[in-house]
Amino acid sequence: MTLEDVRMRGFRRRRDAPEARQLLLERIEPLASEEISLWEASGRVLAQDVTSPRDVPYFDRAAMDGYAVRGEETFGASNYSPITFRLVGEALPGRAFSRALLPGETVRIMTGAPLPPGADAVVRAEWAMEQGTLVHVLEAVPPGKYVSRRGEDVAAGTLLFSRGRKLRPQDVALLAAVNLSHVRVIRRPRVALIITGDELLPLGSPLNDYRIIDCNSVMLDALIRRDGGIPSHMELVADQREAIRRHLEEASRSADIILISGGSSVGREDYAPLLVAEMGELLVHGVAMRPSSPTGLGWIAGRPVILLPGNPVSCLCAYDYFAGPAIRRLGGLSTDWPYLQVTLPLAAKIASELGRLDYVRVRLRENMVEPIAASGASILSTTTQADGFVLVPPDCEGYSAGQKVSVYLYDQYVSAPYR
Amino acid sequence: MTLEDVRMRGFRRRRDAPEARQLLLERIEPLASEEISLWEASGRVLAQDVTSPRDVPYFDRAAMDGYAVRGEETFGASNYSPITFRLVGEALPGRAFSRALLPGETVRIMTGAPLPPGADAVVRAEWAMEQGTLVHVLEAVPPGKYVSRRGEDVAAGTLLFSRGRKLRPQDVALLAAVNLSHVRVIRRPRVALIITGDELLPLGSPLNDYRIIDCNSVMLDALIRRDGGIPSHMELVADQREAIRRHLEEASRSADIILISGGSSVGREDYAPLLVAEMGELLVHGVAMRPSSPTGLGWIAGRPVILLPGNPVSCLCAYDYFAGPAIRRLGGLSTDWPYLQVTLPLAAKIASELGRLDYVRVRLRENMVEPIAASGASILSTTTQADGFVLVPPDCEGYSAGQKVSVYLYDQYVSAPYR
Repeated sequence: MTLEDVRMRGFRRRRDAPEARQLLLERIEPLASEEISLWEASGRVLAQDVTSPRDVPYFDRAAMDGYAVRGEETFGASNYSPITFRLVGEALPGRAFSRALLPGETVRIMTGAPLPPGADAVVRAEWAMEQGTLVHVLEAVPPGKYVSRRGEDVAAGTLLFSRGRKLRPQDVALLAAVNLSHVRVIRRPRVALIITGDELLPLGSPLNDYRIIDCNSVMLDALIRRDGGIPSHMELVADQREAIRRHLEEASRSADIILISGGSSVGREDYAPLLVAEMGELLVHGVAMRPSSPTGLGWIAGRPVILLPGNPVSCLCAYDYFAGPAIRRLGGLSTDWPYLQVTLPLAAKIASELGRLDYVRVRLRENMVEPIAASGASILSTTTQADGFVLVPPDCEGYSAGQKVSVYLYDQYVSAPYR
Repeated sequence: MTLEDVRMRGFRRRRDAPEARQLLLERIEPLASEEISLWEASGRVLAQDVTSPRDVPYFDRAAMDGYAVRGEETFGASNYSPITFRLVGEALPGRAFSRALLPGETVRIMTGAPLPPGADAVVRAEWAMEQGTLVHVLEAVPPGKYVSRRGEDVAAGTLLFSRGRKLRPQDVALLAAVNLSHVRVIRRPRVALIITGDELLPLGSPLNDYRIIDCNSVMLDALIRRDGGIPSHMELVADQREAIRRHLEEASRSADIILISGGSSVGREDYAPLLVAEMGELLVHGVAMRPSSPTGLGWIAGRPVILLPGNPVSCLCAYDYFAGPAIRRLGGLSTDWPYLQVTLPLAAKIASELGRLDYVRVRLRENMVEPIAASGASILSTTTQADGFVLVPPDCEGYSAGQKVSVYLYDQYVSAPYR
């Protein structure tokens, strides 16, 4: 087989990048649910509405340190004519006074303590004087004063959170407060990572002259975890058709989505696209995008398969454009760009080609956007020197110097909100 | 001891909140470093500058699939007058051609493959025709064309990242590419959490009438992890002086920072502030802030101790205002607010008191900011119904309806950038 033959089965037509992304995402649904402990629930996405089984608070309680009274018995009290109560005990948080208050009685009460039956208000400690078994109340309090009523925060039966809610730390606290200890959330997607390339050695290997360290695994592992996925079945595989097939088969059984890095170009040893076509469906192979044109999208056994270019810059870009939103959607999260955007003027023009999506790394300097000149997609250090990137959409030939553009900031990753 | 006595040792003077925060943070330095694997390095903060030990790429390599040639031998080639080379082998990624090219020779080469000595350019596959052992080149390529030169991405000795850098996924990839497998980063702070209160039961307990579920632990656990801390020594402790003292002692040996929730008010069973004063230094007790006025700040054995109010809303607010930035600074991260801000007009006025910092929960409705009316600090559901909060600084008496205010969005947590 000559290179020409290989080329002929290659990128006959490059797909429009936003269209390819949509083709992928519209076929992806959030995964099934699982029940987890509240200890693991912050940041997870609710799979069902949650209704409170219980009032919070569950009993009337003091909202202030002081003395529990029947409010109407304090009417007329003042600094000059205190009203005196008999101190018959105390109520502490978790330790109620043993009986109902009788007329003329009071108990010392602390914030959070249950109000004794008969009492309906709290006199602030500052407005009472304790003297042996007597308490002189210096100010009138209306019924209900400094009392936190049963159900005031949450009434039993209230809808607390709707399906799709990404739980905040305080949401988890509220779920605990209504005495739920577990919630049903969307499962985190298991992401299989198959890295192909004979030249690749795993991180930490001694290097010989012509082999290189696989740096995509460690990058993709971090990106997957950032997007809520669980990296699973991570393998460095030789460029051998049978080995790649075996790993694809295994991954399609154990994972929810498969990423393959390398072997997605049209070189002669690029088995991945052929295998995806053979084992399932190759939806897209080649996108009109720079970098990352050798990206492919497909399905095996109902699982999305994303063919990422082996080049680390292209791999990052294709991950962020295709794989990241796919993983987030599987996990019930937003497919929006996760990077904070700022809009600033360009220090120099950006030229692009009509029909192609460009991912242009940029630096911010004195509130201007400087494109980083780079000879090719392979310069990984441009992504570490960049503050972020600008996307030039297919229907745009570029931007002129001075024009305002939207920059996605690498360091300002915004935790994805609920859908 | 009467309530009056307790009050006398209480909040004699409430500290200005921003001043208290500064007092705390200016005494906190990032922790010592530790060496970790690149697999754990994304999101961590470099403890030292990193210089590349190696060129990337480490050898000249093809940047395109095609034929390796000595560029000057292709001069004059065109569609009409191809120049013919002898095909003597191939070079694949990780598998170099066995010898130097002689004049008139070429080898098939794939992207990423080492360029054979003697070759200095690559003819794209599209611009050559292979015919048996001959290759007809249809276009001239200058020396250097489609070659990725040794050190082009990173030259050995280059400063890759400075101390304080929060590592991105692509940074980790670059570190892998230069064949580093470990990096020295700031240690993640171990955060001890001591939750006091006789009325509290751990999550999942059957409830009796007057006890309540501790909901601060599970909330603080999530907040601590969000801010890069490692929750450690998490204990629910009875309101008993000796028990609290024992846990404070243990925590001051094993953790980098101690949070105590509950027992920081001036009620009679509030041992925590007294113990901090006795065992170390109680810097602040009571801040001019609503909610969260019973917050305290201190030090035991060189560790910051933060007394958080037991009330969950106040606890959340005091965590975010004091504990969060303290934990982030210990871990080498930014002390800035981690929530994305938007500026929008108020739908209704917010009244505050001069000298007091107010943390006002708000909803966003039709691009307006609606303050959530709540009778007190104890309504946890206000923090779950809110989209975020507005801070009214001490030197401000509030904002009028229509005035633009900055809202911190709960759901848009921005991963803290490096300092």
